[in-house]
Amino acid sequence: MKSHTKQLTMNVRERMGFVNITSEVVAAVRESCVQEGLCLVNAMHITASVFINDDEPGLHRDYKKWLEELAPFAPSPEPYQPNRTGEHNADAHHKRQIMGREVVVAITGGRLDFGPWEQIFYGEFDGKRPKRVMIKIIGE
Amino acid sequence: MKSHTKQLTMNVRERMGFVNITSEVVAAVRESCVQEGLCLVNAMHITASVFINDDEPGLHRDYKKWLEELAPFAPSPEPYQPNRTGEHNADAHHKRQIMGREVVVAITGGRLDFGPWEQIFYGEFDGKRPKRVMIKIIGE
Amino acid sequence: MKSHTKQLTMNVRERMGFVNITSEVVAAVRESCVQEGLCLVNAMHITASVFINDDEPGLHRDYKKWLEELAPFAPSPEPYQPNRTGEHNADAHHKRQIMGREVVVAITGGRLDFGPWEQIFYGEFDGKRPKRVMIKIIGE
Repeated sequence: MKSHTKQLTMNVRERMGFVNITSEVVAAVRESCVQEGLCLVNAMHITASVFINDDEPGLHRDYKKWLEELAPFAPSPEPYQPNRTGEHNADAHHKRQIMGREVVVAITGGRLDFGPWEQIFYGEFDGKRPKRVMIKIIGE
Repeated sequence: MKSHTKQLTMNVRERMGFVNITSEVVAAVRESCVQEGLCLVNAMHITASVFINDDEPGLHRDYKKWLEELAPFAPSPEPYQPNRTGEHNADAHHKRQIMGREVVVAITGGRLDFGPWEQIFYGEFDGKRPKRVMIKIIGE
Repeated sequence: MKSHTKQLTMNVRERMGFVNITSEVVAAVRESCVQEGLCLVNAMHITASVFINDDEPGLHRDYKKWLEELAPFAPSPEPYQPNRTGEHNADAHHKRQIMGREVVVAITGGRLDFGPWEQIFYGEFDGKRPKRVMIKIIGE
């Protein structure tokens, strides 16, 4: 069995933003020399996501608006409790649960075995500081 | 290490629908001859889901109603931006994020290591056309 | 390839509750002797979740309030259909979809390869009875 581990550092300048990291994951799969296996990609921070969807700017604007409706940013002590301890990112912990922490992708013939529109995104919900993404590949 | 790759083609005639694909995944596990390992099952399209829950028609009706409330279908250009480019499936991209892209299931003793009610479903949110599901099994 | 399988039994006395199971998963990784691999942790029941987030009581109170808003508990036959068959846990099936069924964590150098605040939680949405969690580890 082969394995390969790689971390990416993300720097999103806005509070909320999405970054296409597919090419970085493709490079890690190539480096791993794994032909058949699984590739895990996950946010290492609990106010961020890794998810697979379309690379369409309109869709990303819609996601931001929708996430803001489902879990609004609220810098005042209300309505979230963690905000009372001085942190103002409780909404980000909620948004991350909607969008998910991780994806697992099949590797077949040395490549990510993707459908026609699948692209891997990093989703940031409490940005303006560096954060990390884990890529772990196992297989043969 | 052994691996096995299989694709299913789904044809859901309604816009939104759920299909129990457990028996197809069970068959793929048998074909793989893997005794101990992991089985990834994911939608290869970004307006569909694979998820695990109960095979209960009332529950599925509730899911449809609930997803329609959280991310309503809207064929007009508003409220979603991608609809302005001529596509009318923005809601499907949102519903898929709630229900998830994939499941990973343990294989123990050559079988899916399931709890009492776990069943694997394909969730379609923009149907009336063929779509694919990936099954990837690795182990020994 | 090595593999290791372990089940935890959860007993949450409230209807909804979160339990930090990180130390149990760390112990299973140690028992597996896997140095490089993947660790799957999933709820074996369809009204429960396994998720990764912060070990912060205020956040957990917020999650409960938020999940109750997104998918309210309703013991009457309305608004959920499964309740008509005598079960009163339809809301729990919905809450579990928001929080997810499973997490997959990288194992590097014999340890869970975690970011600074990542902790693994069992999320119970229909408690007061024993339920199980699956831990499956594969690697080398």
